[in-house]
Amino acid sequence: MRYAAGIEYDGAAFLGWQRLAEGPTVQGAVEQALSYVVNHPLEVVCAGRTDAGVHARCQVVHFDTEAVRTPYALRQGGNSRLPRGVVLLWVQPVDVAFHARYAARARRYRYTILNRPVRPALQRDFLTWERVPLDAGAMHHAAQALVGEHDFSAFRTVHCQAKHARRQVHEIRCWREGEHVVVEVQANAFLHHMVRNFVGSLLLVGRGEKPAAWVAEVLAGRDRAVAGPTAPSNGLVFLGPRYPREWGLPDDVSLPA
Amino acid sequence: MRYAAGIEYDGAAFLGWQRLAEGPTVQGAVEQALSYVVNHPLEVVCAGRTDAGVHARCQVVHFDTEAVRTPYALRQGGNSRLPRGVVLLWVQPVDVAFHARYAARARRYRYTILNRPVRPALQRDFLTWERVPLDAGAMHHAAQALVGEHDFSAFRTVHCQAKHARRQVHEIRCWREGEHVVVEVQANAFLHHMVRNFVGSLLLVGRGEKPAAWVAEVLAGRDRAVAGPTAPSNGLVFLGPRYPREWGLPDDVSLPA
Repeated sequence: MRYAAGIEYDGAAFLGWQRLAEGPTVQGAVEQALSYVVNHPLEVVCAGRTDAGVHARCQVVHFDTEAVRTPYALRQGGNSRLPRGVVLLWVQPVDVAFHARYAARARRYRYTILNRPVRPALQRDFLTWERVPLDAGAMHHAAQALVGEHDFSAFRTVHCQAKHARRQVHEIRCWREGEHVVVEVQANAFLHHMVRNFVGSLLLVGRGEKPAAWVAEVLAGRDRAVAGPTAPSNGLVFLGPRYPREWGLPDDVSLPA
Repeated sequence: MRYAAGIEYDGAAFLGWQRLAEGPTVQGAVEQALSYVVNHPLEVVCAGRTDAGVHARCQVVHFDTEAVRTPYALRQGGNSRLPRGVVLLWVQPVDVAFHARYAARARRYRYTILNRPVRPALQRDFLTWERVPLDAGAMHHAAQALVGEHDFSAFRTVHCQAKHARRQVHEIRCWREGEHVVVEVQANAFLHHMVRNFVGSLLLVGRGEKPAAWVAEVLAGRDRAVAGPTAPSNGLVFLGPRYPREWGLPDDVSLPA
């Protein structure tokens, strides 16, 4: 039987998603907890791996087990074995053809910048601090050049393992909420560090160091060395993937009807 | 010269506001940092002490020094000596008659409840978890009985050192935002544990265990033993005090014009 699960986690508590031989990882914690509940070793496959420090509102995984457990027992049992920084939001049976990574049609990220003269004391693992006043309107304007299907070589890290750099950005929005500037991006998929590299370049525009049109030039040039620096991992939240509605998953990880 | 300062802090990083002989406190950290900058021992007096685990968006203090320092140097120098969980938002000179505690005409608190089947993994130091679905409308309705000047003996801890229990609640609001239920209270001043005891009783109403009219009965009875349990400290944020505008302090700690 195949199951899908939604997982919330605090990236500051782990060395990233992917299981390592040593050190706390989200994948390692989830596999250990669920293996205990089903009483056999199991592996989980996620919609999108996240780096150390990156949080998730609703990561989605699938896993297989023949153990007879209700979805409720899997969730409650799993949560009772998980550390405080990670929790199973829901567990449900899913068609055996479902694959958390390959079935995802979209992925959404949010990046939050605290824009004020002094560093944050509250929620500091969820914010990146920028003391120079940002022009969120100029950032939003500049970001629209990234929408559509493009070769995003200018915004991928050299460590990116993807076979090619073409991705389709569905939407990118940037706005101010009081002392915060928020950037939200949805794409079919992301390259390694793609959101953080978007934000790094948009910050140069927001600070007035580059004109809004510069982001389009960087994209067209396909040269990572020309783009802005990679923005820090804290501030970045993986809101979650989105799947076709036929899989019957919860609304917030399904494509709009 | 007297100065006023606004301070943001993460209550989870300290044993509360008040200086202790041992252990990290917000008062201790702020006094140590500012004493270093002015090069003499100083004490700070706050608008309202907070317990361990309670956060502050803008605590206000006053302190005296004859050292010649700009407000900017006091803030930047202080922040460079403070631990990550506390930051000086602003420092400004103020009339010597100003007193952070006695001049405050109002104080505001916010309490945030995560209301869903599973515990929080994100921002868990800023949320209290309640799994039973809450009726925020009933909570808001019940809370209106607390508005006005009353003897709040039913909602003070036995450790409360105030001389009497009369306080004036200006406003109390309770509403739902998605998975969160938020309670905000403004009063002229608060008894020890007053907000957490309000929330503890409102939770009984929200869960349907007590009718909305019960809160008015508890208030009238003045018996702490009859009210609900004290809600946990995480979830509680001291938004800040409010002063008459004549003191010339920033807008968010001044009474509306």
